[in-house]
Amino acid sequence: MLLKFVLASFVLLSSIRDGSAGMTSSFVRTKWPSEDMPVDHEVFAIPKGYNAPQQVHITQGDYDGKAVIISWVTPDEAGPSHVQYGTSKSNLQTSKEGTVANYTFYNYKSGYIHHCLIEGLTHNTKYYYRIGSGDSARDFWFQTPPTIGPDTPYKFGIIGDLGQTFNSLSTLEHYLESGGQAVLYVGDLSYSDEHEFEDVGLRWDTWGRFAEKSAAYQPWFWNVGNHEVEFMPEVFCVALVENVREKYSSPLWYAVRRASAHIIVLSSYSAFVRYSPQYIWLKEELARVDREKTPWLFVIVHKPLYSSNVAHYMEGEAMRSVFESWFVQYKVDAVFAGHVHAYERSYRYSNIDYNITGGRRYPVPDTSAPIYVTIGDGGNLEGLASSYLDPQPEYSAFREASYGHATLEIKNRTHAVYNWYRNDDGKRVPADSLVLLNQYW
Amino acid sequence: MLLKFVLASFVLLSSIRDGSAGMTSSFVRTKWPSEDMPVDHEVFAIPKGYNAPQQVHITQGDYDGKAVIISWVTPDEAGPSHVQYGTSKSNLQTSKEGTVANYTFYNYKSGYIHHCLIEGLTHNTKYYYRIGSGDSARDFWFQTPPTIGPDTPYKFGIIGDLGQTFNSLSTLEHYLESGGQAVLYVGDLSYSDEHEFEDVGLRWDTWGRFAEKSAAYQPWFWNVGNHEVEFMPEVFCVALVENVREKYSSPLWYAVRRASAHIIVLSSYSAFVRYSPQYIWLKEELARVDREKTPWLFVIVHKPLYSSNVAHYMEGEAMRSVFESWFVQYKVDAVFAGHVHAYERSYRYSNIDYNITGGRRYPVPDTSAPIYVTIGDGGNLEGLASSYLDPQPEYSAFREASYGHATLEIKNRTHAVYNWYRNDDGKRVPADSLVLLNQYW
Repeated sequence: MLLKFVLASFVLLSSIRDGSAGMTSSFVRTKWPSEDMPVDHEVFAIPKGYNAPQQVHITQGDYDGKAVIISWVTPDEAGPSHVQYGTSKSNLQTSKEGTVANYTFYNYKSGYIHHCLIEGLTHNTKYYYRIGSGDSARDFWFQTPPTIGPDTPYKFGIIGDLGQTFNSLSTLEHYLESGGQAVLYVGDLSYSDEHEFEDVGLRWDTWGRFAEKSAAYQPWFWNVGNHEVEFMPEVFCVALVENVREKYSSPLWYAVRRASAHIIVLSSYSAFVRYSPQYIWLKEELARVDREKTPWLFVIVHKPLYSSNVAHYMEGEAMRSVFESWFVQYKVDAVFAGHVHAYERSYRYSNIDYNITGGRRYPVPDTSAPIYVTIGDGGNLEGLASSYLDPQPEYSAFREASYGHATLEIKNRTHAVYNWYRNDDGKRVPADSLVLLNQYW
Repeated sequence: MLLKFVLASFVLLSSIRDGSAGMTSSFVRTKWPSEDMPVDHEVFAIPKGYNAPQQVHITQGDYDGKAVIISWVTPDEAGPSHVQYGTSKSNLQTSKEGTVANYTFYNYKSGYIHHCLIEGLTHNTKYYYRIGSGDSARDFWFQTPPTIGPDTPYKFGIIGDLGQTFNSLSTLEHYLESGGQAVLYVGDLSYSDEHEFEDVGLRWDTWGRFAEKSAAYQPWFWNVGNHEVEFMPEVFCVALVENVREKYSSPLWYAVRRASAHIIVLSSYSAFVRYSPQYIWLKEELARVDREKTPWLFVIVHKPLYSSNVAHYMEGEAMRSVFESWFVQYKVDAVFAGHVHAYERSYRYSNIDYNITGGRRYPVPDTSAPIYVTIGDGGNLEGLASSYLDPQPEYSAFREASYGHATLEIKNRTHAVYNWYRNDDGKRVPADSLVLLNQYW
């Protein structure tokens, strides 16, 4: 049984806008205007054939990477809903049945949304899979991660606030060249809610076809941003299987382990104060982290806890006041956030002794603190957020309002290489680089 | 149609304890031990007769006080579910049908929970009502509030974290003598979740019978505390009618106007960060406040934003970081909270210029700020929270770990009298008194 995403009930509140659109300054670096690519752009092309599967994407389906959830949409009819897969391209010997759902929104009627959980996979193995039937069948593949282990190398991509403009395309194309094996996605996917009525649904579909080029072949770990608070079609549900969720998780916050990393995804838009379900869950999840097995501990949120950009400044204070002390206590290696349409990286700073009555008041260097990365620079239609606090605060190590993405390449239990790439540099020369030393080892 | 309380789906997480139990210090003032009254205590007596209505309570059923929702439980069968009511005790000429629901919890099977919305009432009128039938019928009454108006006097009671101990009984008995016309309830009702299995349900029932003595005759405005986060039987649902909710509210956060007061109830345990539904709602609700019609603006939350008690210290920081600037901007008169099992009142202080990068760091006197009252001293089984920060912070005007309740008597648009009464003073001499000057007029 796949989990139905709780937000799929389409709470229709007034439209939420980001507030950071339209800012300009000398820091802005972008080749293209901030508008969505036309719906007839080739990246949105509908696959040929009756009922051909589209918007194919996968995510990890269990705690340790021996399961995947494959999701796709068929436009014409519900069936078939099975996935054929195997380790040989010419012999897809196993078949697994998925679930189907659809929804309507104004006059928009979605296609048939399929989710199929495939379990019991072997680690570190290439699997081929086929969905659809006859002439409309489509073939993809994915590689399962290596067995959980402290020195297992692995390369993650980090993308946020992607949208579907020409800048978004540039980001995705750069990422596709990176050799990244899985994407830590820090929230705000399609920005379809910037459109109206039927177009909201249509722009989820175009985004799904656009992201397929990567997301059909490697897991993207989704996070909910403000553009998903109201309306997130089930097709991009964070589809952790129910038996994992019951024990460990919810669709809005969850944790997975992959290679040598323990990844905790938090929901900025769910309650997180003491006694809230997310608070209780995180407390328990942090206690479950075993740095002997997964030395690297990363947290993904949408609202940054440290950002010196004027856009959304201090919106992360609420969560910081509740969770920062745990991040320091558990020596989280890095916290990745989006929301602000720019790039920023912090030094290891904390402000955990702030006390409303008395005590320390400002962030100070703290070797146990994570680095905080804001990387909401995927390139959506709202444009860049290019106004920063002046002067640059001490906690801020690097900041720039350019589009791009990052990679984090774990070498072993002690070292990882982190790079931020800006799209405007034709050659893939990192604009911000860091050798991360593990906080535990 | 009555609204079904969203928490009635009984999320069964691990038990949450308050953490403040068992603290003792020289400040503790209590006559009785902190344990629940025995189930056979007379205050929990089951009304005689087959299927006799019990746990009767009312709340305001619309924005301006011309509707009430009457709720009750029948133990034996679902019907009848109507309320007979009228302005003459001997002629209950109108009948209105309610809705019925029930639930199970472990081996506990609830009674039949009735909600009946009565609309179109006349302001400032005494209504008599009868529920149940034949020998089991029971009679009650309530007084509708005066028409909304800037100089309309009204007397509110303020109670929090009541529970069902002998101290709780003392609090309720003292309140019953106060002349209060409606209760602002700051969260944590029955503490039934401190019991196990069937007893959780049974202790909701006993609490409902205990509170009936007041709640059947005057509206209690409910707020969700941590003891309701997981499990809140529908019988105590915050039953605003659906058409009010659709426009203005949710069952977890809502606003009503009564006499000369605009009352905003917030949920400490729902998301409240920017872009969250509660944030959007509050922004709109504050803009709807018309101080020309309702000069008095009160906010009810569960977690205090200012408290110098060691228990739950700074748990309200997350909400403070998001909402405090609005409370100052809109000149809220007072913010009432519970959660901490003690009493505290602040001066008018704010900390809205706190800035993580630089700027003001501590709360400072601010004539536009509300007073913050923590009044989680109703008397539940967890006992008093009697350890305070030493020295007393400048923002703290009065604090004491004693059981009690408060009243707020609005005299006109400019003046209101606020009193806190501790149970241990036999005579009803206020232990903390204040003439509140309206923040708008």
